[in-house]
Amino acid sequence: MSETMRAVQVVGYHQKLEMTELPVPQVENPYDVVVRVGGAGVCRTDLHILEGQWAEKSQVTLPYTIGHENAGWVHAVGSAVTNVKEGDTVILHPLITCGLCRACRSGDDVHCENNEFPGISTNGGYAEYIRTTARSCVKIDSALEPSDVAALADAGLTAYHAAAKAARRLTPRDTCVMIGAGGLGHIGIQVMRALSPARLVVVDRNPEALKLAESIGADEGVPGDGGHVDAVRELTAGLGAEAVIDFVGEGGATAEGIAMLRPAGDYYVVGYGEDITVPTIDMVSDEINIIGNLVGSYNDLSDLMALAARGMVTLHTQKYRLDDFQTAVDDLDGGRVRGRAILTP
Amino acid sequence: MSETMRAVQVVGYHQKLEMTELPVPQVENPYDVVVRVGGAGVCRTDLHILEGQWAEKSQVTLPYTIGHENAGWVHAVGSAVTNVKEGDTVILHPLITCGLCRACRSGDDVHCENNEFPGISTNGGYAEYIRTTARSCVKIDSALEPSDVAALADAGLTAYHAAAKAARRLTPRDTCVMIGAGGLGHIGIQVMRALSPARLVVVDRNPEALKLAESIGADEGVPGDGGHVDAVRELTAGLGAEAVIDFVGEGGATAEGIAMLRPAGDYYVVGYGEDITVPTIDMVSDEINIIGNLVGSYNDLSDLMALAARGMVTLHTQKYRLDDFQTAVDDLDGGRVRGRAILTP
Amino acid sequence: MSETMRAVQVVGYHQKLEMTELPVPQVENPYDVVVRVGGAGVCRTDLHILEGQWAEKSQVTLPYTIGHENAGWVHAVGSAVTNVKEGDTVILHPLITCGLCRACRSGDDVHCENNEFPGISTNGGYAEYIRTTARSCVKIDSALEPSDVAALADAGLTAYHAAAKAARRLTPRDTCVMIGAGGLGHIGIQVMRALSPARLVVVDRNPEALKLAESIGADEGVPGDGGHVDAVRELTAGLGAEAVIDFVGEGGATAEGIAMLRPAGDYYVVGYGEDITVPTIDMVSDEINIIGNLVGSYNDLSDLMALAARGMVTLHTQKYRLDDFQTAVDDLDGGRVRGRAILTP
Amino acid sequence: MSETMRAVQVVGYHQKLEMTELPVPQVENPYDVVVRVGGAGVCRTDLHILEGQWAEKSQVTLPYTIGHENAGWVHAVGSAVTNVKEGDTVILHPLITCGLCRACRSGDDVHCENNEFPGISTNGGYAEYIRTTARSCVKIDSALEPSDVAALADAGLTAYHAAAKAARRLTPRDTCVMIGAGGLGHIGIQVMRALSPARLVVVDRNPEALKLAESIGADEGVPGDGGHVDAVRELTAGLGAEAVIDFVGEGGATAEGIAMLRPAGDYYVVGYGEDITVPTIDMVSDEINIIGNLVGSYNDLSDLMALAARGMVTLHTQKYRLDDFQTAVDDLDGGRVRGRAILTP
Repeated sequence: MSETMRAVQVVGYHQKLEMTELPVPQVENPYDVVVRVGGAGVCRTDLHILEGQWAEKSQVTLPYTIGHENAGWVHAVGSAVTNVKEGDTVILHPLITCGLCRACRSGDDVHCENNEFPGISTNGGYAEYIRTTARSCVKIDSALEPSDVAALADAGLTAYHAAAKAARRLTPRDTCVMIGAGGLGHIGIQVMRALSPARLVVVDRNPEALKLAESIGADEGVPGDGGHVDAVRELTAGLGAEAVIDFVGEGGATAEGIAMLRPAGDYYVVGYGEDITVPTIDMVSDEINIIGNLVGSYNDLSDLMALAARGMVTLHTQKYRLDDFQTAVDDLDGGRVRGRAILTP
Repeated sequence: MSETMRAVQVVGYHQKLEMTELPVPQVENPYDVVVRVGGAGVCRTDLHILEGQWAEKSQVTLPYTIGHENAGWVHAVGSAVTNVKEGDTVILHPLITCGLCRACRSGDDVHCENNEFPGISTNGGYAEYIRTTARSCVKIDSALEPSDVAALADAGLTAYHAAAKAARRLTPRDTCVMIGAGGLGHIGIQVMRALSPARLVVVDRNPEALKLAESIGADEGVPGDGGHVDAVRELTAGLGAEAVIDFVGEGGATAEGIAMLRPAGDYYVVGYGEDITVPTIDMVSDEINIIGNLVGSYNDLSDLMALAARGMVTLHTQKYRLDDFQTAVDDLDGGRVRGRAILTP
Repeated sequence: MSETMRAVQVVGYHQKLEMTELPVPQVENPYDVVVRVGGAGVCRTDLHILEGQWAEKSQVTLPYTIGHENAGWVHAVGSAVTNVKEGDTVILHPLITCGLCRACRSGDDVHCENNEFPGISTNGGYAEYIRTTARSCVKIDSALEPSDVAALADAGLTAYHAAAKAARRLTPRDTCVMIGAGGLGHIGIQVMRALSPARLVVVDRNPEALKLAESIGADEGVPGDGGHVDAVRELTAGLGAEAVIDFVGEGGATAEGIAMLRPAGDYYVVGYGEDITVPTIDMVSDEINIIGNLVGSYNDLSDLMALAARGMVTLHTQKYRLDDFQTAVDDLDGGRVRGRAILTP
Repeated sequence: MSETMRAVQVVGYHQKLEMTELPVPQVENPYDVVVRVGGAGVCRTDLHILEGQWAEKSQVTLPYTIGHENAGWVHAVGSAVTNVKEGDTVILHPLITCGLCRACRSGDDVHCENNEFPGISTNGGYAEYIRTTARSCVKIDSALEPSDVAALADAGLTAYHAAAKAARRLTPRDTCVMIGAGGLGHIGIQVMRALSPARLVVVDRNPEALKLAESIGADEGVPGDGGHVDAVRELTAGLGAEAVIDFVGEGGATAEGIAMLRPAGDYYVVGYGEDITVPTIDMVSDEINIIGNLVGSYNDLSDLMALAARGMVTLHTQKYRLDDFQTAVDDLDGGRVRGRAILTP
């Protein structure tokens, strides 16, 4: 095929993204899938990429196409692909995984020893088409609009993974605290509401965010005004919460999150920034756990999409045409995006 | 390549196997692996195939190469194979799986919706070479001899899977009963000994089998002489065992196995033949569980080979040259094989 | 104290219950708790007791006070009681357990080796007061009315236990079938809805019951008209359900329930009556499980009451004064009770 | 009874212990058990008590009898005790627990909200008799000598708890590192060997300790000479270990332990002293977990005693007569005790 497409590329760090004309990617291997992009999330990580923060870690060669939160429709499939076919609506797991290493064979593909990360280490989804593999394609309900769910591919999936992990240990009598009701947090709240009847307490500095949290399922909103550790203790008869999920991870949130735990409680790290410092004697005498969380697996994404298909998890989005990518990036950088910015064809 | 090889094929039901000359299988797809066979187990299932018992279920087209318990050395790999390379010693998982269906993505590849079964539904390992895929190859310690471990690929893997499932629930105070110390049972005993300190009671009609059982880790041998249910109750203060793993599944073993359980106990079905009949009131008032068991997963096989590499699980084998396949089959049919019969190059 | 109270007693099998005057029970041991009964469930088991069906099993000496589903207010506590105090609203776990045997020490008090069963093996709750121990008292929200929740103590707890066990293995993509939307089933539906977003399919012969099921959380109602196994297969792309919870257990329900399972699926036995008959080959080739279920633990009851306090589980009740016990029994026997019959002070 | 006994008491901080004559404790409540002490461990914590380090935390009133690792024979039981009887050999769980709080009802009695700690917050076992309750008595094989096992009651139980928790997640292919092969570590090694076939790597600065470690089940000993993090990485193909159990917790062990983990690995904190400091980005990008560990539960102690009864866990002890308590304390303080010091009648 001699078709071409538009794609938005990183051409240099500390430079603006540039729109260019490229050949439409082709199926080259039996498990390849080419997807017509229906929605590509514009994420804060994209700003960090332009600042060069990922240059060393990703080792990507410039120029390349940015965009790591993608959904769309299957355009072409390789000969070995059995899970999707042309025309299917799909959301793409953020990683391309090998399927052969021990992690992949355990359903824990996020720790694939041979993974690639489209939009970060190889060509991504700010484009008309993207090439991925069958292992990254989650077929979704055709009633779902790719541009409505694209941001669930990474940000949403991370929130799902942590909330689902916590939900597995929570009973109807337990209390779960979420610190931060922003981008990830508001997905986390909806996920927890779907998976567990545990009491859900949300802490945020922003009164608007707390109002939103309560409207989508939080049982209690606690203002992050300095009195929040005490407030959580009061809400839990002085004992603390069984689980704390921290979507912030900076500005003192880690020490506060740990201080909110009851004995044998679990503190889930999702947001990051600062160091955790905790005395070993506290870990031992209270027998608490600190649980790291990365993005979710292919199965997690499939589960999340089942919730989305039933309207149990929804996202606020602000949509832009692909041609208007610079406006989207500028709006995000300038704090003018409510919910998530999404590029559409 | 114009190379040829010897292969033993099913040419008709109720007919003898026939040795023939075939082209050496070639890599055709990126995930293909061609293995030089170092050991192929001769299994009772092979006798059943010849009797036509699998004809309808497998839908295989004759002639085809028999043999479903295979190990050897990697001869050639496709372009996408990353987990093994030419020269590696490997054992082959009995199923070829797709890697894309929900079961495969969960590490539960045994329930792959698109599986093939070499030696049963497609060409197997009574041959000099076999073609499989990367997903079926478990790389093993090069010190292991393929002909020593080949029978772990199916019979051993089934025993491992059931014993490992049971071990996960057993504590040092618990009692596990195994019914049957034959082919599967003697692997099960070694696996249980490696995975759990629970007291292990083995029931068998054959005094020799009981002696072997005790020599490889059973704490108690109980003759299957009609008094065995009572004997197990006596050994457990009248309460019954926390787990019963039944490698027999016929001749009354199922009712006896269930009768050996304590309240909240688990009965694992591995051997099969008869129907299980149990009153619902017994299931409820004793809150017992009946657990089905199929062959193990790729991960199970990897775990089992780790035990084999450390000498924690060993097999008795009786080896025959591939050319002597008919003797091996006749010996098995005539009850003249101690342990497992294995074909070698 | 010389106070007396009214109590309804079994005075002989195949005879009517009789109201009598008895001394109010007193605290005799440090862990004793005397409860003023606020609600006592009238259960089909009570009819069976009068028919003598439990005489041999319970070994109870007549006369004794019947009634095994009890809730009320704490009237007096022994010196060692720390979990409830006079005036607390409580629901009573159906068993009095020892707290010392292995089962009790594991939180699995239902399998207590030294349990008593008030209303069946000792004096129960068709009375103004009942004596129990601290270990059976679950303190509940004072906003809950004992007569509204009493029937959750046994029937509801059984449904909770099975549904919660199933929920632990279910994901948002799974399907759970419940057979029977009657007394236990309609609690099971509400519990499943609270604990899991899995798709819930309910089978019942009664169109009214299906309508109720859908109004309280079932995703699909399937008429039990003979086509229900096929209907479940159709709803699950021909594969079957991940879990089937059978609240019926007779009239062919067990074979149908097992036939509705997908490979690796779980069939939960709750209702009882008939025998389960299943070929071992089916257990093995589909690797399915048959899971027994008894009444729930103290923890289960505490969890269930947390759901009740938040309005997530509610019961239909038909209330009678204690003096009208005979009417209640007659109405139950005559099929004139909608929901559960409850005796109130 | 007017009998008296010898008991060793704390009479003041920064003072020596004193032997005194006290009444033999009596059964006062139905669940009380009086035990004739057969062995009382002399522990480093006892030295810390004398230095006043526990004064504020324990709020104990002086004088009181010290000694928190106790085993012996049942001398008298209260009327409600059903799990032990006069003459039974028992080891005492270090905590006296209520049996009624949520933690106790879940089998997690270590987090009992109303616990007492004999030897620390109330009278302990440096005496001829000790009063405890039925809930603390684990009946042991009468072939076990109380003085041989007493130190398993606390130090051993802590090691068991952490090792058993880790073992639950380990497969035959995994590597577990233990940092420190001293008092707790050498129990941990034996426990891990009994519960899991995972490869066990032990790190210690002391070559003698490493030799001991290898003789009781460690697969590899790594000298703690500064190169041990690299050595563990080398042993694990550069990937790190699935689990690290740190019995040291000071002198840099925490950072080293975390650095030994592979992605998704678990670091178990047992020894304590220093702070853990870990960047949130590391917790997230490697998705690792930090797991706190306290002493084990009653069930853990029962399990550990099952291993001890079968000779799978043994302790080195150095025995002293109760009258020679000061020598024992001095020897411990002076580093002259090999294994654990035990007081005997």
